[in-house]
Amino acid sequence: MPNHDWYIEKFQDASAIGYRITGRLYHAVSPYQTVEIYQTAEFGNLLVLDGAIMLTEAHEFIYHDMLVHIPLLSHPHPKRVLVIGGGDGGTIREVLRHDTVERADMVEIDEEVVKASRLHLPDLAGQLDDPRVRLKFQDAVEFVREISDEYDVVLVDSTDPIGPGEGLFSSAFYRDVLRALKADGIVAVQSESPFGTKGEVGAIQAKMKAIFPLVRLYWGPMPNYPFGTWTWTYCSKSGREPEIRRPEAAAAIEAEAKYYNRDIHRSAFVLPNFMRKY
Amino acid sequence: MPNHDWYIEKFQDASAIGYRITGRLYHAVSPYQTVEIYQTAEFGNLLVLDGAIMLTEAHEFIYHDMLVHIPLLSHPHPKRVLVIGGGDGGTIREVLRHDTVERADMVEIDEEVVKASRLHLPDLAGQLDDPRVRLKFQDAVEFVREISDEYDVVLVDSTDPIGPGEGLFSSAFYRDVLRALKADGIVAVQSESPFGTKGEVGAIQAKMKAIFPLVRLYWGPMPNYPFGTWTWTYCSKSGREPEIRRPEAAAAIEAEAKYYNRDIHRSAFVLPNFMRKY
Repeated sequence: MPNHDWYIEKFQDASAIGYRITGRLYHAVSPYQTVEIYQTAEFGNLLVLDGAIMLTEAHEFIYHDMLVHIPLLSHPHPKRVLVIGGGDGGTIREVLRHDTVERADMVEIDEEVVKASRLHLPDLAGQLDDPRVRLKFQDAVEFVREISDEYDVVLVDSTDPIGPGEGLFSSAFYRDVLRALKADGIVAVQSESPFGTKGEVGAIQAKMKAIFPLVRLYWGPMPNYPFGTWTWTYCSKSGREPEIRRPEAAAAIEAEAKYYNRDIHRSAFVLPNFMRKY
Repeated sequence: MPNHDWYIEKFQDASAIGYRITGRLYHAVSPYQTVEIYQTAEFGNLLVLDGAIMLTEAHEFIYHDMLVHIPLLSHPHPKRVLVIGGGDGGTIREVLRHDTVERADMVEIDEEVVKASRLHLPDLAGQLDDPRVRLKFQDAVEFVREISDEYDVVLVDSTDPIGPGEGLFSSAFYRDVLRALKADGIVAVQSESPFGTKGEVGAIQAKMKAIFPLVRLYWGPMPNYPFGTWTWTYCSKSGREPEIRRPEAAAAIEAEAKYYNRDIHRSAFVLPNFMRKY
């Protein structure tokens, strides 16, 4: 057996997840974090921020389908979308599949993530130059303070609540997002692991429920993250449940998606007992 | 940072999963495999067979809820159950929660697994002495050759299709299981990972569909296994779908289970697009 190299993330000094790598393609230290891209043996390129695995090209499709299509198809006519974080471009790529969308603003704090992704994650970042996209390199916590009644959907594609992502998990930020939404607006956020960061899932839920009239936890597999399962949280300003509002658009997305389908739209909100307590 | 020890499983020389360990509690080389139990830092004890992680005490509940309660609650009156493999005892523990069950036979090839589990996995193996249980240490492939029309439910709690578990994935074995079942009998098997062993999921489906009138794939999270998601396959001799046949029993199981509930019973069969192709 050859002496292989591995990228192993040791999560909270208790569990580990990793990939065999065949090279490091990118390394930079930005003002915010260390940005690395590795080539894996079997799962395409691997994005790592501050030592935490963000995605592999092989499996990112699940995360992006779940973060984007559930809120966008629950909205009757999403025209203006705000993506917070998401520097790899995968979230924007999925947003642009919705032909109702006229403009997608993306506010990413770290230009270095976009630069690395344009070079080495072209299947994700390839749509960032679409004319409907406006890219801003700025702290989204500051950006949303200035905005009122402007977006149909806000998607928070953040890192974990430590480091540059920390402010994106505060009640003050959630209140600003509520104000930034139009009256029938929806926000979806990545809301951490039901196994690895149990406290976080519950904390996000509690803060959201104090601010939004309707909050629903949903979940799916995410092979790239510790323990392999992830959650997202759907919040509605109008109090409307996350039901499919545009059946034809949902069918069209389903026909092309690798993960999303209309039955999954519903079953993703069915929680196992241990997650009902969060 | 102290210099910790880790148990890292490198799966198919491409991905890795592991736990920080604080000691090795058991090590034996049986005629079939190497049996080890480690103590982890945060997830209870860890069972490893031939280098492959089988379970941690913290997360085994999902696997056992899914393998047992879905088939048993889809049967109108399961009295006699056969468990194949399952030497740790977790499957028997869940079977015995069903008060219709008069007798549970367990056929495990490797006595060493039961011995290790009785010592170091008492929450799993603690029910193996229940008077309803009959334990046989024998190759289940041979055992089922002799049986006709005897079981209401057969549960195949095997290792992967290499080593001692290999014969439990053959068409010949599945035909013997069909014959061993009563007319309204159900079999459920662990059917591998939708990410790590895609070829296996499809191969099991194809063999089953050639033998059973009704075959349904279902899935759930399994943090202990590579990529964190697992599948099981439900097959019915009568052709009946996996619907809840005993609502009161299902409600009672739901009240105590950490994973299973009646909505999960249904949503576990909702497949994302990439799994519909298997």
